[in-house]
Amino acid sequence: MSELRKDPVVGRWVIISSERGKRPTDFTDQRTARKGGFCPFCEGNEHVTPQEIMAYRGNGAAPNAPGWTLRVVPNKFPALMIEGDLNKAGEGMFDKMSGIGAHEVIIETPNHKEVLSSMPEKRVEDLFWACKQRMEDLRKDPRFIYALLFKNEGIEAGATLEHSHSQLIALPIVPKRVKEEIDGAKLYYHYKERCVYCDIARQEISSGARIIAENADFVSFAPFAPRFPFETWIMPKHHSAHFEETEAQEMNNLTKIFQTVIRKMDKTLNSPPYNMVLHTAPFRGVDREYYHWHIEIMPKLTRVAGFEWGSGFYINPTPPEEAAKFMREAKI
Amino acid sequence: MSELRKDPVVGRWVIISSERGKRPTDFTDQRTARKGGFCPFCEGNEHVTPQEIMAYRGNGAAPNAPGWTLRVVPNKFPALMIEGDLNKAGEGMFDKMSGIGAHEVIIETPNHKEVLSSMPEKRVEDLFWACKQRMEDLRKDPRFIYALLFKNEGIEAGATLEHSHSQLIALPIVPKRVKEEIDGAKLYYHYKERCVYCDIARQEISSGARIIAENADFVSFAPFAPRFPFETWIMPKHHSAHFEETEAQEMNNLTKIFQTVIRKMDKTLNSPPYNMVLHTAPFRGVDREYYHWHIEIMPKLTRVAGFEWGSGFYINPTPPEEAAKFMREAKI
Repeated sequence: MSELRKDPVVGRWVIISSERGKRPTDFTDQRTARKGGFCPFCEGNEHVTPQEIMAYRGNGAAPNAPGWTLRVVPNKFPALMIEGDLNKAGEGMFDKMSGIGAHEVIIETPNHKEVLSSMPEKRVEDLFWACKQRMEDLRKDPRFIYALLFKNEGIEAGATLEHSHSQLIALPIVPKRVKEEIDGAKLYYHYKERCVYCDIARQEISSGARIIAENADFVSFAPFAPRFPFETWIMPKHHSAHFEETEAQEMNNLTKIFQTVIRKMDKTLNSPPYNMVLHTAPFRGVDREYYHWHIEIMPKLTRVAGFEWGSGFYINPTPPEEAAKFMREAKI
Repeated sequence: MSELRKDPVVGRWVIISSERGKRPTDFTDQRTARKGGFCPFCEGNEHVTPQEIMAYRGNGAAPNAPGWTLRVVPNKFPALMIEGDLNKAGEGMFDKMSGIGAHEVIIETPNHKEVLSSMPEKRVEDLFWACKQRMEDLRKDPRFIYALLFKNEGIEAGATLEHSHSQLIALPIVPKRVKEEIDGAKLYYHYKERCVYCDIARQEISSGARIIAENADFVSFAPFAPRFPFETWIMPKHHSAHFEETEAQEMNNLTKIFQTVIRKMDKTLNSPPYNMVLHTAPFRGVDREYYHWHIEIMPKLTRVAGFEWGSGFYINPTPPEEAAKFMREAKI
């Protein structure tokens, strides 16, 4: 059973995943890329994954068999376990709870060779629909307060399987960075009576210098103070705290701008490894006035992120205005 | 001129270092390790670095010439510039200031082949003395509030030169993670009237399960909620907010425990790349009762730190009790 543990000073929760329990010698393998060979996510290999939670497939087709376009399955090596109680407890001055949560894999395509930038628009939209559907289901579980969608594309970005997929983790706690955003947005709202993200979107659109792409419902830009070169955000123009409340029209525009951004990034940076994280409001306990969901995309270009972990202090060699210009002008 | 910019929601400052201004194609080179060839840090190549700020060398020996055991030089490609005013300014809703600061390199040895684990104890102690000496000097500059000592060992940890060195950055702001520690420690102090780090050290010593090494003045342990496998902290047993106030006796015990930890890490994990960061109190404005300086060492073993940047949510496959046991029992 894995454990959630809290740092007693800064309040950050981490998963200590003893199921995966790594001995010192296990880490050497991780330095090797896993390419080629058998792929558990390919069509025809459905029997290798745990039983699917949901899938998009033709009417009447049997589950856990070929014929699907998207599958959601439990992670075979989950960081958290779906069954059990939270068992919140102390250990002297420290706080911990059982590693309860959902850890699901969204297999975005049956085709091993497709990636988000090259797959048909419909598949990318399905990823977002599946995420919405799973979040609506997971939020019914009173043990969970947050669902974190993320994607590691490429070995250097932390992917352990090449086949295009995202991951969804439902948690009994709110991730630290989202918590910080909520606190900051709340403070701003109480001072200004406006959503800080709405103000950011307005200023970015009005200035234009960091804009990458835009459509009726969404804007994409390089943030004013990015941690990483070519860090890119996508944000709904209209105020919305919860991703899972996105409607059909917006979902299509989200898909369009998302795929445009990934294609521009691939063109500008030669298909870099990247991480994508969806920041949305917790299921409960946050006023919808002041939080604003958005997507953060971080191409993995530098190794300079070494000491940054330890200090929270980032050195970014690329001004966002330059990064945005390259991305904006990239022909796709 | 580089710029310091603040994220308007979470309050994190980043350096946008346009001097180093990276174009998209520049990033490909970074994926290549730089080994062998000419080394600007080796003895005899003193003319290649900027003029030294200080050095340890025999009496009467000329500066910027051979005969030294440690040199401190300005970083040739500094993230911050030492000359100028802060020019704090707004850009609409955003905050920024000039990228003023010191960016120094501490060359720890004239010998290209030595690393911290293999060099004589005296050299490691000199690193800490040099750091103290530079901090005492830099804190006199009213523009600076913080000095950050860190080390990237190995290409995978972000080192761009192989020759053993650390870096010292003096800043007009407090790094975010240190700020969070200060806030957390202050809260705890007001509630308990005790230093949270003193309490942590006491509990770790009393439990013993996560202890790696210990001597009269220092304790080293795997923290209760580590972000990374084999993450290791070193902390003074006696309450002390400012590293630069460390006395001679303690400095020697710091050196001994530090080198022991690095050697145990090298033995256990086959000389992994790692990052080391010194967390100390800001020069001004923080009560010395509640902050407690310490060193964090993070071997770079996994690439799993992908989405973690975006969420502040870490999955660690190695329980700290197991990591500490391996390190504690490693024969060096």
